[in-house]
Amino acid sequence: MKIILIGGGKLGKQLYSICNAASEIELVQWVVRSAERGKTPEGISLVNEVNELYPADLYLLAVTDQAIPEVAAVLPEEAFVAHTAGGVALEVLNQNRAGVFYPLQTFSEGRNIDFSKLPIGLECKQSTDLPLLEKLVQALGARVLHMNSKQREQLHLAAVLVNNFTNHLFAEAAAICSQNDLPFELLNPLIQETVHKLEDLSPKATQTGPAARHDHKTIEKHLTLIQERSLQEIYKAVTLAIQKKQ
Amino acid sequence: MKIILIGGGKLGKQLYSICNAASEIELVQWVVRSAERGKTPEGISLVNEVNELYPADLYLLAVTDQAIPEVAAVLPEEAFVAHTAGGVALEVLNQNRAGVFYPLQTFSEGRNIDFSKLPIGLECKQSTDLPLLEKLVQALGARVLHMNSKQREQLHLAAVLVNNFTNHLFAEAAAICSQNDLPFELLNPLIQETVHKLEDLSPKATQTGPAARHDHKTIEKHLTLIQERSLQEIYKAVTLAIQKKQ
Repeated sequence: MKIILIGGGKLGKQLYSICNAASEIELVQWVVRSAERGKTPEGISLVNEVNELYPADLYLLAVTDQAIPEVAAVLPEEAFVAHTAGGVALEVLNQNRAGVFYPLQTFSEGRNIDFSKLPIGLECKQSTDLPLLEKLVQALGARVLHMNSKQREQLHLAAVLVNNFTNHLFAEAAAICSQNDLPFELLNPLIQETVHKLEDLSPKATQTGPAARHDHKTIEKHLTLIQERSLQEIYKAVTLAIQKKQ
Repeated sequence: MKIILIGGGKLGKQLYSICNAASEIELVQWVVRSAERGKTPEGISLVNEVNELYPADLYLLAVTDQAIPEVAAVLPEEAFVAHTAGGVALEVLNQNRAGVFYPLQTFSEGRNIDFSKLPIGLECKQSTDLPLLEKLVQALGARVLHMNSKQREQLHLAAVLVNNFTNHLFAEAAAICSQNDLPFELLNPLIQETVHKLEDLSPKATQTGPAARHDHKTIEKHLTLIQERSLQEIYKAVTLAIQKKQ
């Protein structure tokens, strides 16, 4: 399976190393927007422009959401092109042979992601193109997940809640710890348990805390402890939402 | 070390089993508000009323925040009494020998918590009482953490963010998955990675997503996907807060 990877960002770098390590995948070219050209140590041709691309079985776009339509527009009309975005419609790709390959994960600079068992959401304009994407997922040791565009955009929203928003709460907690001379790692066992109990219990069933028990005294106190208005607004919104469900 | 445990809720039950398993701790009585009386299988005397209590080295209150002052009020004035709440002032206990023993953890029905390395925040009115609380923490294999009331209330606020609020986001994501015929466990690798990357990177440094990249198109789309107003308010508040920090 000949693949050309387009994008040198966080996801692009991960896909580069994992595709490169998979024996069934032949990574022919890698498009990066840096000044770098030539070949990678593994012999993969590095190019800067999509108009320098060879033919391939699949052009995999790991570019920003905004760049997807413009990159797809300059790729051959008959090419099989798949993007990797959770929140971008399949129709943004002008090719008839268009697909989505959405890894349900967050990618950070300097972190290696384990692709084994990682769900990868697949969708294709033409069902005859699905087997190739399935083969790619399997070659990476990941988990095929068929979904339509509606399911994908909903899953992307859910991913934003459990990853981006949760991460922001962690950042706010880290700031509180730092302002009070407490190491953030003190919260590790609590964070671990918050996640581990999902294995056995539904998060709705285990909701605890001042909001769940309608403990207005503690809620009022916390609001006076919070100095930043933006965190106060989060505190109020989440507290109200929890109270509505209890 | 003779201890009397007061409270039969989630934390009370955990403290009962862990104190019971620690050889240095003699759990003399356990006050539960159920109709149960007599002795536990381990020979610990079960009582329903705090006025039936024997003398002990420490009376440990694992009761609701609201109940702490009323329970403390009926305990002997000369007793050493410690509560276990993150958000309750030490002064709520009328005894001179008063302390706080705050396990930085969430306790759910049916989940056994590993106390090894669990930070337990200690505070005492009289510093001469600290060694006994330290001994108790060590007997449980947990981690002594000295803190003042201000640090404790701030840590409690941080705990609410990383546990209660995060759990609510998980519950909202689970609801989205369920409404779209997708199993919530699909999000497990993403949730795991959100937490695992805290080991290496600060959450502030790894903030990603539509809010962090000021992707108004996706933000607007997500707001139209969300049907419940309470979740819309959370989405707006967290998005604004993330944008302020990027």
